[in-house]
Amino acid sequence: MAIRIGAGTIRLEKPVAIAATAAVGSRMEKEGPLGAEFDRLVEDSSFGEKSWEKAETKMQTLAIELALQKGNTTAEQVDVMLGGDLLNQCIASAYAVREQGRPFLGLYGACSTMAESLTLASLLVESGAARKALAVTSSHFCSSERQFRFPLDYGGVRTPTAQHTATAAGAALVGMAGPITVREVCIGRVVDLGVTDMNNMGAAMAPAAWDTLRQYFTDTGTSPADYDKIITGDLAQVGSDLLVRLAAEENCDLRPRYTDCGLMLYEREKQQVDAGASGCGCSAAVMCAHFLPAMQQGKYRNILFMATGALMSPTACQQGESIPGIAHLLHLTAKGGTN
Amino acid sequence: MAIRIGAGTIRLEKPVAIAATAAVGSRMEKEGPLGAEFDRLVEDSSFGEKSWEKAETKMQTLAIELALQKGNTTAEQVDVMLGGDLLNQCIASAYAVREQGRPFLGLYGACSTMAESLTLASLLVESGAARKALAVTSSHFCSSERQFRFPLDYGGVRTPTAQHTATAAGAALVGMAGPITVREVCIGRVVDLGVTDMNNMGAAMAPAAWDTLRQYFTDTGTSPADYDKIITGDLAQVGSDLLVRLAAEENCDLRPRYTDCGLMLYEREKQQVDAGASGCGCSAAVMCAHFLPAMQQGKYRNILFMATGALMSPTACQQGESIPGIAHLLHLTAKGGTN
Repeated sequence: MAIRIGAGTIRLEKPVAIAATAAVGSRMEKEGPLGAEFDRLVEDSSFGEKSWEKAETKMQTLAIELALQKGNTTAEQVDVMLGGDLLNQCIASAYAVREQGRPFLGLYGACSTMAESLTLASLLVESGAARKALAVTSSHFCSSERQFRFPLDYGGVRTPTAQHTATAAGAALVGMAGPITVREVCIGRVVDLGVTDMNNMGAAMAPAAWDTLRQYFTDTGTSPADYDKIITGDLAQVGSDLLVRLAAEENCDLRPRYTDCGLMLYEREKQQVDAGASGCGCSAAVMCAHFLPAMQQGKYRNILFMATGALMSPTACQQGESIPGIAHLLHLTAKGGTN
Repeated sequence: MAIRIGAGTIRLEKPVAIAATAAVGSRMEKEGPLGAEFDRLVEDSSFGEKSWEKAETKMQTLAIELALQKGNTTAEQVDVMLGGDLLNQCIASAYAVREQGRPFLGLYGACSTMAESLTLASLLVESGAARKALAVTSSHFCSSERQFRFPLDYGGVRTPTAQHTATAAGAALVGMAGPITVREVCIGRVVDLGVTDMNNMGAAMAPAAWDTLRQYFTDTGTSPADYDKIITGDLAQVGSDLLVRLAAEENCDLRPRYTDCGLMLYEREKQQVDAGASGCGCSAAVMCAHFLPAMQQGKYRNILFMATGALMSPTACQQGESIPGIAHLLHLTAKGGTN
């Protein structure tokens, strides 16, 4: 039974756990600060395929297979897979799960997808609808640039607010037992403060991040000091600064606990990624390569993970629409973790 | 508590009900056989907006508002909205729910979206994660043609296997009490038998439909005779014939109980829609305008609804990929309904 706490938070009464995770990346991710923590790094970002889209499918397939392997689980033991990605019609996921032959729920949450899939996977396991569920997502720099901005060959100049889409995939196996427990989830609302700059996703997402985080703090009566880490998906420099400022305006100091996956995946100056990393694969890989394994090793015991998505459509932007943001939150604890 | 039955079916133990539905369409839908049953018909398919995409958002907003109104429910009383559509980045839904200010889970299941959103809405209500949930989807002929095929002005010639995308939206309010009970759900797998013809979605979806239906019959030990109606989403003429044939090959005669929303929305010959109707909005509107109200009136007591989706991407098709299909199923009963 899931219990509603306050106006927007859902507490999981039965034990739901993240049993195993896997992260896959490419050359840029290898050269970044977290390179050594990935499960698989394929330097050739084509992954041996003939198109960037097929490469992304291959990368997501690798993440699924590695997570299953690390969880000593066969695909047949997974009752449902939940995933999505940034490509139109979410084809990276559709073609990746096609090979698995398991029930599939396709999601679209832009870069919030890892939190959305983990939230739903956790709720389905808690309710008994699934014994094991797998959450997966990916992004690929080259397929994203072509679809959302310019073909790579065009050599478009980037703005300082732009973020570099991670070429990465993350998969997490959710079940009834495992080292990391899912305590609560908070499903976010679509928030849009009118940002229209397609090269400033961080600014578009920050208000949604604060909306969800404030809801969760209000519902649970907790504050940043109650957590070891508060981790957002891919706000990068511009969005992170904005989130900290939005929180400060309501007398909430996030800084002592706060970090953002978009600031962790690359060395910004050296790797020339402007404001930082982005893409569904960014927070998926940083969580699956770094934070969730670190929790398993006892380095963190009590965290909030909130992936943020900019529901940005080139068509809508060309029609003068602003970019809506969304953010979903999970409260995770490891053995000995409180709250 | 949801109970797993067999390898793929989930039985809802606590009462979950469809409390209210609403369907919105345009001129073609008004002129079709179900015209009189829609809640709102707006002959001008621009819905007074400046783009087809904004028109689709407006249509979906109308469906949400009408369903809430019919269910005597305010948006604030809905704990989560679940929706998606055919547009890249699912913008019809994102902009429609932006106005509602409620927690949102974005889905991508192509034309299976209404069954996917109803399935998840039902599971979330059953588990206690939501007291009320709203499932919504839409499609628009003009926004779809531009995105998936040709701009309307090009005047592309259609093949006899082509389907006409419905300009329609459907919304259903799911709660703990209401006239229609959700008994079981069956989440489908991605099935791909190699169809590469972008103008033959029915053939791409039929194998997925049979895969899910066969799974459900096996899990529950039931057969077509146990139901008043077995309703697929939008297989239309080509796909329906194929589904009946696939079932017959395994000694299952669907014909006495079977119908398809894609064959009901328009008068095929007179309205020149080739193989029939398609689009997320097709099965959403046929269910919300016709079948669910008919159940409420006691005309049907025991049905299977299975929306079918072709996860078709123009980019993937141009790269030689085939079109994967998926289908999700719900078993619904009305008062006095059995099983």
